[in-house]
Amino acid sequence: MEIYQTVFVQQTRGRGTYDIGSDVERFVEEAGVRTGVCQVFVQHTSASLILCENADPTVRQDLERFMAATVPDGDPMFRHRAEGPDDMPAHVRSVLTQTGLSIPVTGGRLGLGTWQGIYLWEHRTAAHRRRITVTVWGR
Amino acid sequence: MEIYQTVFVQQTRGRGTYDIGSDVERFVEEAGVRTGVCQVFVQHTSASLILCENADPTVRQDLERFMAATVPDGDPMFRHRAEGPDDMPAHVRSVLTQTGLSIPVTGGRLGLGTWQGIYLWEHRTAAHRRRITVTVWGR
Amino acid sequence: MEIYQTVFVQQTRGRGTYDIGSDVERFVEEAGVRTGVCQVFVQHTSASLILCENADPTVRQDLERFMAATVPDGDPMFRHRAEGPDDMPAHVRSVLTQTGLSIPVTGGRLGLGTWQGIYLWEHRTAAHRRRITVTVWGR
Repeated sequence: MEIYQTVFVQQTRGRGTYDIGSDVERFVEEAGVRTGVCQVFVQHTSASLILCENADPTVRQDLERFMAATVPDGDPMFRHRAEGPDDMPAHVRSVLTQTGLSIPVTGGRLGLGTWQGIYLWEHRTAAHRRRITVTVWGR
Repeated sequence: MEIYQTVFVQQTRGRGTYDIGSDVERFVEEAGVRTGVCQVFVQHTSASLILCENADPTVRQDLERFMAATVPDGDPMFRHRAEGPDDMPAHVRSVLTQTGLSIPVTGGRLGLGTWQGIYLWEHRTAAHRRRITVTVWGR
Repeated sequence: MEIYQTVFVQQTRGRGTYDIGSDVERFVEEAGVRTGVCQVFVQHTSASLILCENADPTVRQDLERFMAATVPDGDPMFRHRAEGPDDMPAHVRSVLTQTGLSIPVTGGRLGLGTWQGIYLWEHRTAAHRRRITVTVWGR
C-alpha cells in the first residue's frame, strides 16, 4: 500500500457551490492507486464539501435556498457576528454538512455513482481562498 | 497493511431505514483485517448511511418524522421536481446526513458501540436498488 | 505504511462541547506517522464529533442554541422518550452532525486549518463517559 497527499486552493466568488471533482480526480490518477480511498478535506469551518447531484444546477440552487431558510443570515439568535450576518450561519452550515469526504477509489478512478459530483460549498458571502487537502491510499 | 474492497446492492422498498450491519461485518471478517478502518459508501445522492440506535425501532421512526417535518415533500421552495415531490427533499436529506461512514476495525470486527447500528436510509418514496462500496484496510 | 489505534474516554458534564484536540494530537505524534490520515470515532449515538471554530466560545454557544431551537427537547413529535425529553433529540443531533471525522496528517501533525478545533459534542443533559477510537495510518 502507498499513500499520497496534496493541497490545492480553490478561489471562491462568495456563497455557492464549486465543482472540484476534476481536481480531485486528477490527483487520484497521478497517484496511480488502483484500489483504495481518497479523502478530501477543507481546512475551514465556514465552507463545506458535499457530494451532490451533478446534472441539474437547480438542485444546488434549491440546497442554497433550503439553507438560507433554515439558518437565516442575521438571525438574532446568533451572538457571534464578528464578521457580519453570514458569519455564524456559515459555521452552522459547515457543522450540518461536512468538511471531509472519503470516496472509494476503484479501478484507478473515483468510485462515484453516475450522478455524484464533488462540490466545495462556500458559505460566506465574500470571496475566499479555500485550502483543500487530498489524501489517496491503496494499492 | 492490506486493503480490500467490494460492492453490494441493497434493494429498498422505498423510504425508510435498512439495517446493513451484517453485510458490512461479513466483509470485514472475510478480509481478515484485525486493526484498521472500514469505509462504507453509498453511490447515490438521494439515500444516506447513518449510525443509529439499534435497539428501539421508534428511534428510526422519529428520525423519519423529524426529516418529514424539516424537509417537507413538495415544499414550494424547491424548483427541482423532475422526479416528483420527494425528489429534492431526498437530495437535501442526503446532504444533511452522510453518504459515507468510516468505522474502526478492532480485534477483527467493526469497533461499534453497543447501541450503534449501520443503516441505509432510503429517502425516495419508490423502491430503489442502492449500490454500496465497502473498503477495509489495516493489518 | 503503518496503522495505529487507541481508545480513550472523555468524561462529560452533560450537554455542551469538549475540546479533544490535544488528546488526538498526542496520539498522532506518538504514532510517528508523517503523512497520512487520522480517524476519530465516537462509539455512541447521542454525542457527536465536530470540527468547529476554536477562537471564540460564542460560536459553540450559538451552535447549541441553534440545535435547541431546531430539535427541541420534549418535542411531542418524538415517541422515543425512554430516557427523558433529551433522549430522541440527542439521536437526531447525532445524525445531523457526525460521529466520525477523518483528518489529514501532514508533517507528523494534524493538518487542521488555523481555526479548526476538534470537539466532542455531548447531546444528553446528564454527564456521560464517551468512548472515542482514534486510528492513524500512513508513512
